[in-house]
Amino acid sequence: MSTEKQTAPLKTGKGGWVCYRPDIKLLDCTIRDGGLINDHKFDDKLIKSVYETCVAAGIDYIEFGYKGSKKIFAPAKFGAWKFCDEDDIRRIIGKKSSKIKISVMADADRTDYHEDILPKDKSVIDCVRVACYINQIPLAMDMIKDAHDKGYETMLQLMAVSTINEHDLTEALDIVAKSPAAGVYIVDSFGSLYSEQVRDLTKIYLHALAGTGKDVGFHAHNNQQLAFSNTLEALITGANRLDATIHGLGRGAGNCPTELLIGFLHNPKFRIRPVLECCQNIFAPLAKQLDWGYSIPYALTGQLNQHPRTAIKMRASDKPDDYVGFYDQLMEEES
Amino acid sequence: MSTEKQTAPLKTGKGGWVCYRPDIKLLDCTIRDGGLINDHKFDDKLIKSVYETCVAAGIDYIEFGYKGSKKIFAPAKFGAWKFCDEDDIRRIIGKKSSKIKISVMADADRTDYHEDILPKDKSVIDCVRVACYINQIPLAMDMIKDAHDKGYETMLQLMAVSTINEHDLTEALDIVAKSPAAGVYIVDSFGSLYSEQVRDLTKIYLHALAGTGKDVGFHAHNNQQLAFSNTLEALITGANRLDATIHGLGRGAGNCPTELLIGFLHNPKFRIRPVLECCQNIFAPLAKQLDWGYSIPYALTGQLNQHPRTAIKMRASDKPDDYVGFYDQLMEEES
Repeated sequence: MSTEKQTAPLKTGKGGWVCYRPDIKLLDCTIRDGGLINDHKFDDKLIKSVYETCVAAGIDYIEFGYKGSKKIFAPAKFGAWKFCDEDDIRRIIGKKSSKIKISVMADADRTDYHEDILPKDKSVIDCVRVACYINQIPLAMDMIKDAHDKGYETMLQLMAVSTINEHDLTEALDIVAKSPAAGVYIVDSFGSLYSEQVRDLTKIYLHALAGTGKDVGFHAHNNQQLAFSNTLEALITGANRLDATIHGLGRGAGNCPTELLIGFLHNPKFRIRPVLECCQNIFAPLAKQLDWGYSIPYALTGQLNQHPRTAIKMRASDKPDDYVGFYDQLMEEES
Repeated sequence: MSTEKQTAPLKTGKGGWVCYRPDIKLLDCTIRDGGLINDHKFDDKLIKSVYETCVAAGIDYIEFGYKGSKKIFAPAKFGAWKFCDEDDIRRIIGKKSSKIKISVMADADRTDYHEDILPKDKSVIDCVRVACYINQIPLAMDMIKDAHDKGYETMLQLMAVSTINEHDLTEALDIVAKSPAAGVYIVDSFGSLYSEQVRDLTKIYLHALAGTGKDVGFHAHNNQQLAFSNTLEALITGANRLDATIHGLGRGAGNCPTELLIGFLHNPKFRIRPVLECCQNIFAPLAKQLDWGYSIPYALTGQLNQHPRTAIKMRASDKPDDYVGFYDQLMEEES
């Protein structure tokens, strides 16, 4: 199978299993995406454990949360990781490790980026990932420029790609290609993409960004039990930047589990044992209190290419296993 | 993406999402593979519900269980579906539906096939699937011939394909190509295969069987959350016969869930609603009593291409979440 970006020993084709791609970069978004389940109200023990795990596991980036606007989101209603104040990050990381980069996400229309993102020399943050929908591309480009000019590495997360038509997507990617963003992520917000779509999209992104030096990334959701396999599909096709979360934590059906991805990559810089330790000590107990991970309602919204919000609501109701009622409701809404 | 067997509108490439492959045949092995969890001790209500669901959902085959030898397996120790006596099947199905074919599995070295598989005209069974390891191919061929001569459709399930080297596999497939088997399954017994391996194996099977009219099938396990995606990979590459189980029931990490597969196929002959009904009424309650489905220990045995028996034992112990201890034990055994 051919890829459009083949800069290193590629894990594909005959003999491909023994080597690895040293250019792959993992970003842990356990706390950021997981925070969407509980309004970012994690205790410091969990946050520290995830941070230390990522350092020990050789993961390239850790994303603590959002730079949410305090004018929009009342600080009393959310945990610290909705805002990622410098002091909160410093409290967790102590002396900054040189081994891992720190990332935050800045949502278009939900971030006071001019004020809340400090000049890089006053911050422990290394990377700002701007998240937007297709209609917010001009705003997102201004946010990328702002963060870049302040000294940060920047990335774009273009959300809900499964709802964007190819013409609009190409236009957006042409704009992004001229921006200072170091990478652009394919974001399967609804967990609706199948492998062939992931492959086609990865090729579209690679083609649009060819010659710019920008990386293509992939952010999966597990609505149809395809988060891990779709991440591999993007990787094999040429995506270099992969999002994962420990124990698959994340809103709704969750994300691509770090422990599965590291098992596949067998790049000696990544280590699975610290991740297993964190799963065992932190997330196995947490799974008894918080509901995340695959279940049938998420599969149904994924099949219909819908936002999982109705499934999340249904799973939190007093009838979390009323699959038929939920299916009938979705069918009625579609008609 | 090219396939070697492109006899019908193929769900791949540009525009491929709107059509479907009418030649795809689904086999439900909920009761057969699920029986490995509880020694086949299901009550009639569950068995009837699965049967009626499969008929209503348009599934092509239902596999009730094994034709186990009563000289090897004491009937008092197992449920009826270890043996699939004609009377037991008739009790469940009543008047035989013309819409669905009935299958049983005959394990090499564990079946008194000469005696226990009756001539077809005395049986409600349509299809005998012979399961064997690579070293049992000669015996399996005799079993296939016996069942074929008695009037049955026959299939071969060559287990643990991830442990077979390519030379031996090709030799086995050349033998099978000359047999009366209507199809041969790629069986990922350890849930260890990644998509590229599934694609390569499917091509090897298609090539070996080219011109014989035999189908290639795929039987997945979910140890690495890849059962559904690997089934799709085999399908896209040209496999026509797919195994699935309702709610992913099956030993250890379970199988490819029927409700996900039907969602992808969107072939009008398959219907998801009856499957959801069965999930809701039978399997969601059962999941509170029986342990099956993905968990980290299965991922670890899958990553190491090992039989999941150690993971099954560990999940049934008093430390089902001791991932690190289990990992250390596996690493020690590997060294």
